[in-house]
Amino acid sequence: MNSTPATPNTYPYSNERIWSRSEKAIARKVFEAALKRELEDVMERAKQMANEIKDPENLWELERFLTQRRKKIDRNYEFRTSRLTQVLGILLCDGRVSEQELRGLREDRMKPIRSCANALSNDAA
Amino acid sequence: MNSTPATPNTYPYSNERIWSRSEKAIARKVFEAALKRELEDVMERAKQMANEIKDPENLWELERFLTQRRKKIDRNYEFRTSRLTQVLGILLCDGRVSEQELRGLREDRMKPIRSCANALSNDAA
Repeated sequence: MNSTPATPNTYPYSNERIWSRSEKAIARKVFEAALKRELEDVMERAKQMANEIKDPENLWELERFLTQRRKKIDRNYEFRTSRLTQVLGILLCDGRVSEQELRGLREDRMKPIRSCANALSNDAA
Repeated sequence: MNSTPATPNTYPYSNERIWSRSEKAIARKVFEAALKRELEDVMERAKQMANEIKDPENLWELERFLTQRRKKIDRNYEFRTSRLTQVLGILLCDGRVSEQELRGLREDRMKPIRSCANALSNDAA
């Protein structure tokens, strides 16, 4: 059986060009910065919500908030090279990263990231 | 088919005497007070934990703490007459209610509550 991909230097099951070491480094930096900001945001919001707890319902609201954010973070922040376009697209769509931060990436890399962000944005609309 | 219980004035499947209206009123008062204290304790602890959040791990500790306490509260505070002895036994064992609070109950009512608390206490040892 021939296991050579139809288009060399692309991922199996996609036509995406393989991420170079320097592109991955940019993506990693942007990814880590976005994750740090997101976690800081959850920490700040949790402190604020806890501070405003007046009755048990506020407690369980805080629990639900933490569970939802943890699940969303687990889902969105998965640094796998084969999923980097989607991951960055999701973060761009959610406003968690800016185009400015991704400026080190070439246009042929940015285009599918932007398409993914737009598609998600349209889905949410 | 005869549906008359083997021992009149007892619950089906147990030899426990049926709770009188005044006994239920005492149990309800003790139960509500214990629930209130437990919820106040969780609220205070959650505020304290949130206040001490320094890194994401503290966030998820707070989430786990809230989930565990909510589940334990749901499990332990179920005011059903057919389960009152067990419910009060659990709260007595956990130190959530005192014998002093239950002093309006007759000794034949207190004995199984104490037995339940002791059995749970031995299980936990």
